[in-house]
Amino acid sequence: MPRFAQRMKTMEKSANIIRGLFGAMNDPELISFGGGAPAREALPVDIVREIAADVITTGKKGIQALQYGSVMGLPELREVVVDHLLAPKGIKAKAENILITSGGLEGVNLLCQVYIDPGDIILVESPTFVHCVEIFEMFEAKCIAVDMDDDGMNTEDLEAKIIKYKPKMVYVIPTFHNPTGRTLSLERRQKIAELGSKYDVIILEDDPYRDIRYSGSDLLPIKAFDETGHTVLANSFSKIFSPGSRLGYILADDEISAKLFNAKTATNSHTSMLPQVICAEFFKRGYYPAHHRMICDLYRQRRDTMIECIDKYFPEGTKRVFPDGGLFTWAELPGGINTTELLEEAVKNPDVKVAYVAGEGFFTEGGGKGINCMRLSFGSVTPEKIRVGMERLGGLIRSKLK
Amino acid sequence: MPRFAQRMKTMEKSANIIRGLFGAMNDPELISFGGGAPAREALPVDIVREIAADVITTGKKGIQALQYGSVMGLPELREVVVDHLLAPKGIKAKAENILITSGGLEGVNLLCQVYIDPGDIILVESPTFVHCVEIFEMFEAKCIAVDMDDDGMNTEDLEAKIIKYKPKMVYVIPTFHNPTGRTLSLERRQKIAELGSKYDVIILEDDPYRDIRYSGSDLLPIKAFDETGHTVLANSFSKIFSPGSRLGYILADDEISAKLFNAKTATNSHTSMLPQVICAEFFKRGYYPAHHRMICDLYRQRRDTMIECIDKYFPEGTKRVFPDGGLFTWAELPGGINTTELLEEAVKNPDVKVAYVAGEGFFTEGGGKGINCMRLSFGSVTPEKIRVGMERLGGLIRSKLK
Repeated sequence: MPRFAQRMKTMEKSANIIRGLFGAMNDPELISFGGGAPAREALPVDIVREIAADVITTGKKGIQALQYGSVMGLPELREVVVDHLLAPKGIKAKAENILITSGGLEGVNLLCQVYIDPGDIILVESPTFVHCVEIFEMFEAKCIAVDMDDDGMNTEDLEAKIIKYKPKMVYVIPTFHNPTGRTLSLERRQKIAELGSKYDVIILEDDPYRDIRYSGSDLLPIKAFDETGHTVLANSFSKIFSPGSRLGYILADDEISAKLFNAKTATNSHTSMLPQVICAEFFKRGYYPAHHRMICDLYRQRRDTMIECIDKYFPEGTKRVFPDGGLFTWAELPGGINTTELLEEAVKNPDVKVAYVAGEGFFTEGGGKGINCMRLSFGSVTPEKIRVGMERLGGLIRSKLK
Repeated sequence: MPRFAQRMKTMEKSANIIRGLFGAMNDPELISFGGGAPAREALPVDIVREIAADVITTGKKGIQALQYGSVMGLPELREVVVDHLLAPKGIKAKAENILITSGGLEGVNLLCQVYIDPGDIILVESPTFVHCVEIFEMFEAKCIAVDMDDDGMNTEDLEAKIIKYKPKMVYVIPTFHNPTGRTLSLERRQKIAELGSKYDVIILEDDPYRDIRYSGSDLLPIKAFDETGHTVLANSFSKIFSPGSRLGYILADDEISAKLFNAKTATNSHTSMLPQVICAEFFKRGYYPAHHRMICDLYRQRRDTMIECIDKYFPEGTKRVFPDGGLFTWAELPGGINTTELLEEAVKNPDVKVAYVAGEGFFTEGGGKGINCMRLSFGSVTPEKIRVGMERLGGLIRSKLK
């Protein structure tokens, strides 16, 4: 058979991690803190049914939902993004600068199409989101990790590494970061936008969790501080509407938007219409505020339960993040426990049967970093099951310290 | 601003053609034989409404429609492809070798991700589908045109060019070819599969029109003759179900499927779930056979009208293709008429107001080939409007010959 393209060579490892996770998610007895899926109780099934019944008719909207659409996305949904999602967060955008993507990840893929040549450097947080690293690897970019702390990406280390490595792009998840749940401080948000402008580097702000906040106050996006067009904002409807709909958007200034149009055309022409029509109606009919309150209340309780359980069942010396929103927390275990090795036992031991994601895989720099860490996702597990699962997992961890 | 990636440089021209077309499609007074969209009467709106009402519930299917799905696609839809679409066409496939894509084009994109490095050669038909050329350009491949005649791609010229250029891939649209409406003969289908095996070249068989046949007999796909796994079949639900749903599939042998999984993961994780759930039900509830008959009857009448009008209104010496299916015919005009120049007048002259796609843009080799040709799409225009539009267009063409 012919040789595969060069870009396929680097993807094997991360793809296998994900494949394994998808498998584990299907074991009905497993309590999984692994996947990042929203709760099934957070899916607006009844609202979607009502809207679908109204719009799928032989009138304009029904035809629109089934016929070819435009590359940049359904105009109504692009206006929803501008009016309902960006304006309240301090961003004045025009609908023509919004491209509707097939999920938030596709925005990252499209921006890579526009900017990344093989060998380009992308600076990422340490740790960072493994799915995006897969995309960067597919584009044969080289990822360099930037230090982070409880206030997110360290901007002094970032500036030093921009100077040293001359990257094409900086990839940052500023709010309720995946995998750690940390939030980038306001001061650093402004600084990152300024660094992008000063050093002529694209800042890719990936912000899918920002709208599910359970405590603390909203912070302006990095994009709000961008005066030169170097910051591109990618976001997703997965956490506030439905992940299976595969809807996201990317906001970029004119010149970049025109290139994103070309990349989208050559990827899949446009995003599926029926989910776009339904999602636009979901906002235009005013369902979002109450739905948003409902899901935030749901997740707040789960987060509180998860944090309480870490403090109660995990051994002394455990460090954990208290996330003000999103779906994840991050625990650093004491006593040299290897979370990658522990995972197999946690999943297979019939007295435990708990999944999480081992920390190691989130560090692009390797070298054993994060070997004692784990990402714990609380979004799709009920408080009762969180208690059961965390007690079992905590017991397993403590048994290793004896 | 930072430099765009190398791959963005080559796309400008084709993207502008498409952008222009999308614009022209929105003029309500225009009779457009330009776009390749299915008829609105061919969209199964009522069936989709019924299915949506049944499946979007808090039961398994409703949650499945809104929650994350699997990378390769909804298992039920992959089984529909195997049982309802491939088996009747002489292809025995396993569901695990089917990847559900976000439209047929995405299959082409994903296979390029898997195989195409910058500078690779792809052999294409002369003329060929402009959207796919955009994808090939995005991957920095070099397209080389292979001669075609009324039986499709010339396999002698193909073999000579495989030997001369050592391509990575051959791209072929075997049935009711876009833009010409021609169909590759059975003998050549077998030959192309054999050439792929013999010379270790990937054959990308793009077959979105094959199921809308109005006359003549079905021919086995190239993939049916593939004994080595070199042929990959990409197809689409756009013409038999709904283009706006952005659903397609790609059938490849195990080793390639595993790489397609990685490419899909890094593109957009998986295809939108609600359209997949609805489309699978459309087939499983047995709606397809009657719907299929209805759309074939609809399009047959439009094809017959279009051909009758070419023969009646176009000048003597016009050559045209009689397509046994699909959405297009192809006309070659006498007398040195430049169809690119004519198009502007055809669209803007208030006594004409007719659009088509000028032939020149479909020839990757350039050099004025196809300058006197046009693609005429009959799918989305009623027979009455076809008559009006073709009489006006024929009048304009004849006026140029006086």
